[in-house]
Amino acid sequence: MFLTEEYKTRRKKLKELMGSGVLLFLGNGECGINFKHNTYPYRQDSTFIYFFGLQLAGLNAIIDLDNDTEIIFGDNLSIDDVVFTGPIRSLEEQANEVGVSSVSPSKMLEEYLSAANDKGQQIHFLPPYRPEHILKLSELLNLPSDEVSKNVSAEFIKAVVKLRSIKSDAEIEEIEKAVHTTAEMHYKAMEMAEAGLTEADLFGAVQNIAMANGNNTSFPSIITINGQILHNHYRGNLLKEGDMVLCDCGAENFSGYAGDMTRTFPVNKTFSAKQKEIYDIVYKSYKTAAEMLRPKQLFRDVHLAACKEIVVGLTELGLMKGDPDKAVEAGAHTMFFQCGLGHMMGLDVHDMENLGEQYVGYTDELKQSKEFGFKSLRMGRALEEGMVLTVEPGIYFIPELMELRKSENKFMDFVNYERLEEYKNFGGIRIEDDFLITNDGSRILGPKLPTTSEEIEEFRNSKKRL
Amino acid sequence: MFLTEEYKTRRKKLKELMGSGVLLFLGNGECGINFKHNTYPYRQDSTFIYFFGLQLAGLNAIIDLDNDTEIIFGDNLSIDDVVFTGPIRSLEEQANEVGVSSVSPSKMLEEYLSAANDKGQQIHFLPPYRPEHILKLSELLNLPSDEVSKNVSAEFIKAVVKLRSIKSDAEIEEIEKAVHTTAEMHYKAMEMAEAGLTEADLFGAVQNIAMANGNNTSFPSIITINGQILHNHYRGNLLKEGDMVLCDCGAENFSGYAGDMTRTFPVNKTFSAKQKEIYDIVYKSYKTAAEMLRPKQLFRDVHLAACKEIVVGLTELGLMKGDPDKAVEAGAHTMFFQCGLGHMMGLDVHDMENLGEQYVGYTDELKQSKEFGFKSLRMGRALEEGMVLTVEPGIYFIPELMELRKSENKFMDFVNYERLEEYKNFGGIRIEDDFLITNDGSRILGPKLPTTSEEIEEFRNSKKRL
Repeated sequence: MFLTEEYKTRRKKLKELMGSGVLLFLGNGECGINFKHNTYPYRQDSTFIYFFGLQLAGLNAIIDLDNDTEIIFGDNLSIDDVVFTGPIRSLEEQANEVGVSSVSPSKMLEEYLSAANDKGQQIHFLPPYRPEHILKLSELLNLPSDEVSKNVSAEFIKAVVKLRSIKSDAEIEEIEKAVHTTAEMHYKAMEMAEAGLTEADLFGAVQNIAMANGNNTSFPSIITINGQILHNHYRGNLLKEGDMVLCDCGAENFSGYAGDMTRTFPVNKTFSAKQKEIYDIVYKSYKTAAEMLRPKQLFRDVHLAACKEIVVGLTELGLMKGDPDKAVEAGAHTMFFQCGLGHMMGLDVHDMENLGEQYVGYTDELKQSKEFGFKSLRMGRALEEGMVLTVEPGIYFIPELMELRKSENKFMDFVNYERLEEYKNFGGIRIEDDFLITNDGSRILGPKLPTTSEEIEEFRNSKKRL
Repeated sequence: MFLTEEYKTRRKKLKELMGSGVLLFLGNGECGINFKHNTYPYRQDSTFIYFFGLQLAGLNAIIDLDNDTEIIFGDNLSIDDVVFTGPIRSLEEQANEVGVSSVSPSKMLEEYLSAANDKGQQIHFLPPYRPEHILKLSELLNLPSDEVSKNVSAEFIKAVVKLRSIKSDAEIEEIEKAVHTTAEMHYKAMEMAEAGLTEADLFGAVQNIAMANGNNTSFPSIITINGQILHNHYRGNLLKEGDMVLCDCGAENFSGYAGDMTRTFPVNKTFSAKQKEIYDIVYKSYKTAAEMLRPKQLFRDVHLAACKEIVVGLTELGLMKGDPDKAVEAGAHTMFFQCGLGHMMGLDVHDMENLGEQYVGYTDELKQSKEFGFKSLRMGRALEEGMVLTVEPGIYFIPELMELRKSENKFMDFVNYERLEEYKNFGGIRIEDDFLITNDGSRILGPKLPTTSEEIEEFRNSKKRL
């Protein structure tokens, strides 16, 4: 929780950007796992956290610009609740801490919106990403459920993106805390990994650190010997000599901010020569990208530069061929690097993804591409001071994709399919860190983890931190 | 996953119980945390697991009794998915493993149901417990969302409850695995607890064991020095000398079955005299209840016997007074024991709670009470061989409840409010184990954990397992 002034400032800026109408903020409810009262760990909506701070289930809020009113809608607990939850401070008291003086029972929200509608006020709301939002909006606004998404407010989205994209000092401090815990998670995985353990052993240990030091992980940890599977959540494999472990995980601290880092390391103390060759290409791509980060730099171009490094490296190895620039232009790098170079990070690990990638990572002039490989580039637009984002190049040998592209005769001028056969069971490598854009460049967030292949091997041998 | 025959038998029995109509089984989808693609750990619907085994998001199924047809509705993955998820066996192959030969694309389900409806077939479905179910049912059955819940099939509920209440040998084996992992979680908490650690440290370690050895915890772990708060999920407190830790947690294994146990132990090596007195009353209540478990025994009466032990013990201590039977009749025990003695356990930690407690724990003749204390008794009906359930008495000193009842002049003949003042900061104690009803009594599931106050102290001193 930040100081009251921080929330007031955020809402003030939002009001200046929006001008008129009623802004509707849906807080998240509890979500039942296998029955209603067995709930997943509670997570408030990030935009609600950003403007109203309160991480309680069942709240909604409005800012009525035409009447200069801010109201949090929610209900206080009964004695029956208190038996199960313990004493909880009144909603009025909590609202006061985020600078909102008006609190109203939940059931009044529908009435408020209906009256606003009758008065011809425009009601702005953000895109629903949980079924509960669709149901709630359908009920509150008297819309058929399949009409809800069509009525989201682009103006509201743009204003929220504008504000949340640039992190305040207080936010950067919170993100850095989350990144610190994230680094601890990585150190743990790199310390304990050895042949005979399972992926799940590492997964549990990493989860432990996130939950003992914060709210949760910021996304389901990917800890796998099959790094070529980008979002691999299976964790039943045994670690074997010669395998590499790809560990992509992050902590979410109590204030809701995320960290997100990836390291790939050998189960042995050292990489094999073949692994090290590929690792060093990924590292070069990472380094090239990191060094380009600065205000006004188009992130799309950072992505392309990172892709080119991968192509250059793989060409030197004989896995690719031809002119690297043309290969990237043709999209041949997507044989090995199928996703985007990075994404903004903040209250969401993919910050504001629910508001729409086009709005968050692109502009009216710069549209997100729908092509394979490019469509997962979540960020293309020019960087600005105060942005926080990840850089995460990788090389992934996906047998299914290799076979498919070969059968399509695709990228024949750029890919050496014959040579590629030797890499069918190689796996995948990713390196990922979190960066803050500063006034003249960037700063890596959190402590420096072992990153080069030499540093990784040194740590796997000595267990001594940098 | 069980043998194909097990699933076929379950469906065969269900068909025999139901007779006619179309049975609709909604599988669970993914659930976005803070944006659509950042999902909570996936959990399939338990009834879907029970009859169809497959733990994949986005499936639905029907059993058409009138046409003797079983169909799983779902979609195979595209290459875009495979990049992120890795190769996945075809749905046809997986369906075949649970004895279902017919698979159809998701989009055909609506058509199927609409045709069935046109032919006058009754469509049976179970109560929705996630907003996604309401939306899906509303769309599939062309019902307004607020009409969905009114149309659930009591006949279908009763048939499912009848089958799922009695566990097969294969199920008991799975439950016992989950209880074993649960015992490991408890040993870990009891081994590591010491002054200076936080509740979160224990929480993380316990979570680690569940996630390294199975699917997840079977519910959010309650690990607290404020045991009087029944579902306490705050974990920021420091453990201090003199505190007790209440640890209520359970593992869910990969097949979806739950364990659920509670122990309460001192942060010191031994309980204080005052703590031990209360602990021993809870243990006596636990033991009395456990010994009563056998087929045909009304669980409501086991609950009442457990309540009476608590009243007798507290009367001896001078915290209660008067005739214990009359005290229980008046509900005076709910000052200290506000919830039910136990619940069935299986694929859900509160097994089948989403189907309605009245259907699961009661009968047409025996109705669930709505009174404070009784309304959380999830199980009242006669026990049967093959049932699995928890026994979990406790004594909780809830300051807010004590003040409220005193101000209402309630239970004046049974509660010594003056004496009670000394226990305002005592906290709470619970003991919980999982039992299988056998043909002539019961069997405790999993390994025996330290349970009596002496065993707990012995373990806290020696760390030696029983």
